Amino acid sequence: MVVCRDPTEGPLAGLLPLSVLAAALLLHPAPTPLAGEEPAGDRETAGRILGRALVDDGAWGKLEHLTTRIGNRLSGSPALEEAVRWAHERMEAEGLEGARLQPVRVPRWVRGHEWARVVSPAPRQLPMLGLGMSVGTPKDGITAPVVVVGSFEALAALGREKVEGKIVAFAPDWEGYGRTVRFRGSGASAAAKLGAAAVLVRSATGRSIASPHTGTLEYEEGTPRIPAAAITVEDAEWLRRMAAAGEIVTVSLFMEARLEGEADSANVIAEIRGREAPDEVVVMGGHLDSWDVGQGAHDDGCSCMAAWQALTILHELGLRPRRTLRVVLWTNEENGLAGGRAYREALGAVASSHAAAIEMDGGCERPVGFGFSVTRPGEPRRGEGTAPLVPADPAAARALATVRRIGSLFDAIDAGVVKWGGEGADISPLLRDGVPGLSLDTTGEHYFDWHHSQADTLDKVDPIDLRRATGMLAVMGYALADMPERLAR
Amino acid sequence: MVVCRDPTEGPLAGLLPLSVLAAALLLHPAPTPLAGEEPAGDRETAGRILGRALVDDGAWGKLEHLTTRIGNRLSGSPALEEAVRWAHERMEAEGLEGARLQPVRVPRWVRGHEWARVVSPAPRQLPMLGLGMSVGTPKDGITAPVVVVGSFEALAALGREKVEGKIVAFAPDWEGYGRTVRFRGSGASAAAKLGAAAVLVRSATGRSIASPHTGTLEYEEGTPRIPAAAITVEDAEWLRRMAAAGEIVTVSLFMEARLEGEADSANVIAEIRGREAPDEVVVMGGHLDSWDVGQGAHDDGCSCMAAWQALTILHELGLRPRRTLRVVLWTNEENGLAGGRAYREALGAVASSHAAAIEMDGGCERPVGFGFSVTRPGEPRRGEGTAPLVPADPAAARALATVRRIGSLFDAIDAGVVKWGGEGADISPLLRDGVPGLSLDTTGEHYFDWHHSQADTLDKVDPIDLRRATGMLAVMGYALADMPERLAR
Repeated sequence: MVVCRDPTEGPLAGLLPLSVLAAALLLHPAPTPLAGEEPAGDRETAGRILGRALVDDGAWGKLEHLTTRIGNRLSGSPALEEAVRWAHERMEAEGLEGARLQPVRVPRWVRGHEWARVVSPAPRQLPMLGLGMSVGTPKDGITAPVVVVGSFEALAALGREKVEGKIVAFAPDWEGYGRTVRFRGSGASAAAKLGAAAVLVRSATGRSIASPHTGTLEYEEGTPRIPAAAITVEDAEWLRRMAAAGEIVTVSLFMEARLEGEADSANVIAEIRGREAPDEVVVMGGHLDSWDVGQGAHDDGCSCMAAWQALTILHELGLRPRRTLRVVLWTNEENGLAGGRAYREALGAVASSHAAAIEMDGGCERPVGFGFSVTRPGEPRRGEGTAPLVPADPAAARALATVRRIGSLFDAIDAGVVKWGGEGADISPLLRDGVPGLSLDTTGEHYFDWHHSQADTLDKVDPIDLRRATGMLAVMGYALADMPERLAR
Repeated sequence: MVVCRDPTEGPLAGLLPLSVLAAALLLHPAPTPLAGEEPAGDRETAGRILGRALVDDGAWGKLEHLTTRIGNRLSGSPALEEAVRWAHERMEAEGLEGARLQPVRVPRWVRGHEWARVVSPAPRQLPMLGLGMSVGTPKDGITAPVVVVGSFEALAALGREKVEGKIVAFAPDWEGYGRTVRFRGSGASAAAKLGAAAVLVRSATGRSIASPHTGTLEYEEGTPRIPAAAITVEDAEWLRRMAAAGEIVTVSLFMEARLEGEADSANVIAEIRGREAPDEVVVMGGHLDSWDVGQGAHDDGCSCMAAWQALTILHELGLRPRRTLRVVLWTNEENGLAGGRAYREALGAVASSHAAAIEMDGGCERPVGFGFSVTRPGEPRRGEGTAPLVPADPAAARALATVRRIGSLFDAIDAGVVKWGGEGADISPLLRDGVPGLSLDTTGEHYFDWHHSQADTLDKVDPIDLRRATGMLAVMGYALADMPERLAR
């Protein structure tokens, strides 16, 4: 599509301001066709795709089945494998090309029965969710006084003398997900190094109605593995106040959590093979697995269903781009990333076949646009240190400009913003190889209110937002797969 | 105070537009005193009270102790009696007059251990809270298919044949607290009449992060008592979708809930005796008891602490109104109203001694003003049928005008609105006798998000809003107690 061709590179360079064309297409029901010129047909195609998606509830129907009938889908659970089978069979029934399963071995972590109680000063239940991949407690649980800290520095300052044998509670201020979630990821090992018996972590959310939020931890090699659980924001704040008042709180923690080896799972794949370069691939998707609470609706069922339905719509419209457009519903994003790694490994030494990778894994609130980045091998990415705030070289800048022109097709649904900085856990192995990466961005207003909790359920998803996301993935995926030249990298 | 005198009644009628005076007082740091005229002194006094409260954190300190150190306070629990003792002793230590306990027998309902599980089609825990005053299940629990209804009419239409032996789930749309809470109150008996084994009720909230909200039920006389529990909004919506899809969901419910007779409790009382008519009383307060979850911060600890601190401030300022101004921290509002009834009964045949009653029981979000009403004996009140939308007689209209002029003193803190319609469960026995009643109104933006759940905790209270409420209670209480004539009734 012309909207995908960088005018500084291609033969039509400078001919037409594309955002004007895109606006004309989207804002006027019957734009004047630019007869005989390829760009007009491409823009007309973009309009057909977007328009179809904006009135289509196919993704919603699939999401309703996935969340309401199958439910949450932790790696190693029967529910995840039911979802894998259902998606694969339905893709075949829809007549999608290359519908297949890519086998992946995934960890089988089992929560088991678990509880926490305040023993003193006043006994009561402590709502909690054990952290993913945590070990369990001894059969009689762990009962110990709680030491409350708000940072890793505060923990270090306490030293072994004040931490040994205690339950360490991380009760930091909310500083956004990225900063606050560090205590969930690294808190257990940091406390274990000082001899702590167990760890409680403030749930990584800014807004709470007393719901604990789980998520994975990562034990450091060579450090004792101690049990760790998320507690509510309310109880973290209460523990802080009690500590400030000099009151010792004693807690009992019981967790049966255990890792039961590995299980068979699979990435679910379907595609539309490219008409000119079938071996060049634009891949898009989300992860089909979820935590073992709620329904995995925003994280990440809705994205999987949007990407899948985007492909279904293109298939139904009979569209076949130059390159192959592939949808992957990755497995095991939450506690291992085995699906994303297996997908990358199957590509061989370098992922040169891949022209672009799109991941949607931030929920399905109202979309606002895309994030985009091209990573040079060895360069840090977001979440891996200090990533560059602007494209690091001219080729990346040109690619960003191209994606921005495609993105402007979404101006009329208020989703035309393309920011530098795109990522996704499942596509991160591809991005590290230099594959240009995109993420669908939303308002993100309430995502972390529900994230990894019992509240990540279908009732939180707006079917109209899901239509918008489906349309954006369909147009962006098609555009990237159909443009004459691959994105600069 | 002149702000309390109805200009259509008193000697200064028509002299000064009071809202102008009030605005002058509050908006300008040094208003011109109206030397020699009593109204000036009164307005000056109102300013002293309000100004002091707006920079005072006494209520916050008390609330922090009540919620963080004592915790939730269900009738019959040791925590409620600790709160009663603490408040009484501290009132005495503050030198408040007439600090005393009014003994009240209250029900001792005990939740015990409880859980619910989906048995089929896919087993999982069902977060729940048994409803207050519910009976428990048999020792082996109750396991039965769920019948989902959205209204009492839908239940009746099913009839005994489809309900008998089943667990009835009330999953209505959210139509505001007043309408939705009917299923919590009456659902168990309505279902029991058709032979249901137990009842699950959608939590009475419009916004949910998967937290169940408890609250009391009322069994009808002569109807079998069956166990009832609140489930989350998320699960109510899920049950609806499953029913719509024709899927049968089977649930196991286990509850040890039981009524263990009665316990000793007390209303906590303190006052400033009137300098001219000590036997005429303006009473204000909230309820000290709460549900057995969270900390009873918004419901209703904050109101108790605001009313108490209002009295403390007046005491510290050395102010003594014409009539007695009394604070009552009522007991057992949540599941019996024994405190409010005992207070009324102690007054004898009619509550003619009481010039006005103020209750704050809608949480401590940002105050917007007061509700006010005067009820003629036998007239329906809000929540009791169709209450009049405007004052029913000229005396009530005059009283409303007077309260509105006092209320205008709060214009500068955006809390000057006085609406017709004031109520409060604890003061309802007084209001039925014709005592003019006031309630402090707030924005009420999030109150029901937290109400009767684990999330009703101190972290949800804004200390500045608490200062505002304290100031409003202090000024309104003092004004009603000090005005030359009682409010018209």
